[in-house]
Amino acid sequence: MAQQHLDPTDPRSRPVGPVPTGDALAGYLRAQATEFLRALRLHRETGSGANGSEGSAEAARALRRSARRISAGLHTFQSLLDSDWCEAMRPELAWVSGTLAMEHAYTARLERLLTALHRLSGSTALPGQTVGAVAAGRADAPAGTRADPAAGGSAAPAAPVPQRAASRDAGLRNPPATAAAPERGNLTVGAAKAGALLDRQLTLARTRAHSTALQALGSSRFHAVADKVAVLASEVPLTRAAGGTDLRPLAAAAQDRLTDAVSALPLVTAGSPYNAAALVHGLSPDTVPHPQDAPWHQVRLLLRLHRYAREAVSGPKGNAVVDLRLLSAGRALNRHRDASEAAAAAAQAARTPRIAPATAYALGVLHADQRHEVEAARFAFQQCWQKETVRTS
Amino acid sequence: MAQQHLDPTDPRSRPVGPVPTGDALAGYLRAQATEFLRALRLHRETGSGANGSEGSAEAARALRRSARRISAGLHTFQSLLDSDWCEAMRPELAWVSGTLAMEHAYTARLERLLTALHRLSGSTALPGQTVGAVAAGRADAPAGTRADPAAGGSAAPAAPVPQRAASRDAGLRNPPATAAAPERGNLTVGAAKAGALLDRQLTLARTRAHSTALQALGSSRFHAVADKVAVLASEVPLTRAAGGTDLRPLAAAAQDRLTDAVSALPLVTAGSPYNAAALVHGLSPDTVPHPQDAPWHQVRLLLRLHRYAREAVSGPKGNAVVDLRLLSAGRALNRHRDASEAAAAAAQAARTPRIAPATAYALGVLHADQRHEVEAARFAFQQCWQKETVRTS
Repeated sequence: MAQQHLDPTDPRSRPVGPVPTGDALAGYLRAQATEFLRALRLHRETGSGANGSEGSAEAARALRRSARRISAGLHTFQSLLDSDWCEAMRPELAWVSGTLAMEHAYTARLERLLTALHRLSGSTALPGQTVGAVAAGRADAPAGTRADPAAGGSAAPAAPVPQRAASRDAGLRNPPATAAAPERGNLTVGAAKAGALLDRQLTLARTRAHSTALQALGSSRFHAVADKVAVLASEVPLTRAAGGTDLRPLAAAAQDRLTDAVSALPLVTAGSPYNAAALVHGLSPDTVPHPQDAPWHQVRLLLRLHRYAREAVSGPKGNAVVDLRLLSAGRALNRHRDASEAAAAAAQAARTPRIAPATAYALGVLHADQRHEVEAARFAFQQCWQKETVRTS
Repeated sequence: MAQQHLDPTDPRSRPVGPVPTGDALAGYLRAQATEFLRALRLHRETGSGANGSEGSAEAARALRRSARRISAGLHTFQSLLDSDWCEAMRPELAWVSGTLAMEHAYTARLERLLTALHRLSGSTALPGQTVGAVAAGRADAPAGTRADPAAGGSAAPAAPVPQRAASRDAGLRNPPATAAAPERGNLTVGAAKAGALLDRQLTLARTRAHSTALQALGSSRFHAVADKVAVLASEVPLTRAAGGTDLRPLAAAAQDRLTDAVSALPLVTAGSPYNAAALVHGLSPDTVPHPQDAPWHQVRLLLRLHRYAREAVSGPKGNAVVDLRLLSAGRALNRHRDASEAAAAAAQAARTPRIAPATAYALGVLHADQRHEVEAARFAFQQCWQKETVRTS
């Protein structure tokens, strides 16, 4: 299907319909600004109290989505826009989307890690189905197992958070085998304690991120951003020449930046299954952050800029085509980022003082598992990219 | 190259030269029995003392090699041989090769695990290059790190073993980063302690295996086996009809047993890279032994029986062809077995009482790494087998 459409960012392709110029960019930015204001209104209506947490989270996602797109448009097509305005606006938009992203990131990271712990324990139960089982699992623990003070405390010391997801209270069910073979059950107890420890640490981080986001949304800094976006919704500060300038060379430059960054990736290694490259340095002292992941994270950002540039150029009609082609590559890179950060969280949790050896062992298995997810995501990206290259050549 | 040769076990292929009958089997068994006696003589000459450990290990390998082949011949072609004699002989040969295999298995397992620890620590040094560095690494440990009594004691309490490999005294070098960032260095200390713990446990097991093998070789039970093999070297107890019976249907039956067992393997899953199947139950209480590995171990044994049956049928001239076709599949299954047992050893070491959390964490990473090696070996086998199927169809 994607094959039948012309690539709108390729300057060599025949123009179909009118050439997209600065006017198309202005329309795109106005639409995104309107979307931003709509999401902000929705966020204020649903509130951040006990009610409407679902709508509030959805509003935050929509805010981030439009903030990212406006920021990307300002970046890619900066030469068509008032440069002072661009330079003042972009850091503020990055601050908004970054601040709003943290809470969701911690929620997703905890869910990913708890799901992985369940998978590694051979349990088919999902985290949400085993509410409160941690305490029960702890009561089943053999008497010889050392107490784990760091993993205790089911109530986090932070204030209650309304947007708390279902996984907040997720425990880890001990399989029946523990009761049958208590002398071998300590590793499953380790998985339960590792889950409780991660739950405590990541929930605390999420609670803080939620408070930070609430403070940010009420700050004068945010109100200034919202005012600027409101102006943007009606009046885009284009340069005088922008109305007659073709957008496509600028979009093609964004694509070239992506292509260059991808060509610098170790794709040959990534394309060989089980290359074991992602877990190299898995036990080195500096696991956070993993330096080998940085080029992949960079490609993830460039892929997003490329995707948004195509949106701006091709308009709403072309969006489906863009998504079809880039969706899987982007998904693989999102998975890469998520697994990389989850692995770092597991390694970080293992440095908590006074944890039990069984807890540390489970966190080690979990860390390695997530690093292999990193490797798997690189393989998936390589596979997508090979297909993509064949298509566009 | 393998394509150009006819498959000697395929009953449909045209017979080239004389049909292999019981006489060919008798020749094969006599040759293997002679090889067994030669290896036994070599073993007695090189002795098991401090001198000649290299020759002694080589002699033990040769003993196992011929014992396995005689045993396989007795199994596959049992209908052509005196059945009482076969039934008395096979368990004894299995006992000999099994007893002699243990010492080498522990040596290889320790080397595999120490090499993996070095790889995971981002160290390029091989285990043999860092003799005595464990103690130095321990002295560098930050003061806040808890002492690890179980991993201490560089001198194992067992008697010294002459066949001790170079990796016996292998330590784990701390990278320079530890000195620069002592507050983050505990995981590398963990890797060093995990290595010391595995070294202690597996060296102890190897020492015991060595003593057991020495006792076995001096036992009256072994002398009885050696006497029977000496008789076999001159006189193979064939049935009366064996001289005129074609060996190839029996060899084909061995191949069919292999094919059936392979078709029961989850090869579709194994052929999808990063299926994460091998680490399922990675944290379940019963990691030793891993039930999902059993069918693969079984295929490994059946592949060996098939290979030896081809040797018996095709004679020394056909061996090269057999090896070329089955070597890679057999190697993948050996790697599968080794990684599976190494992962179990890491999990077992993590259950040592009173180890430090950093040690347990490193063992968890190591366990998961070896389980991914298991998955990688299955993938490699699937790739070999696909090629093989295409070739023989």
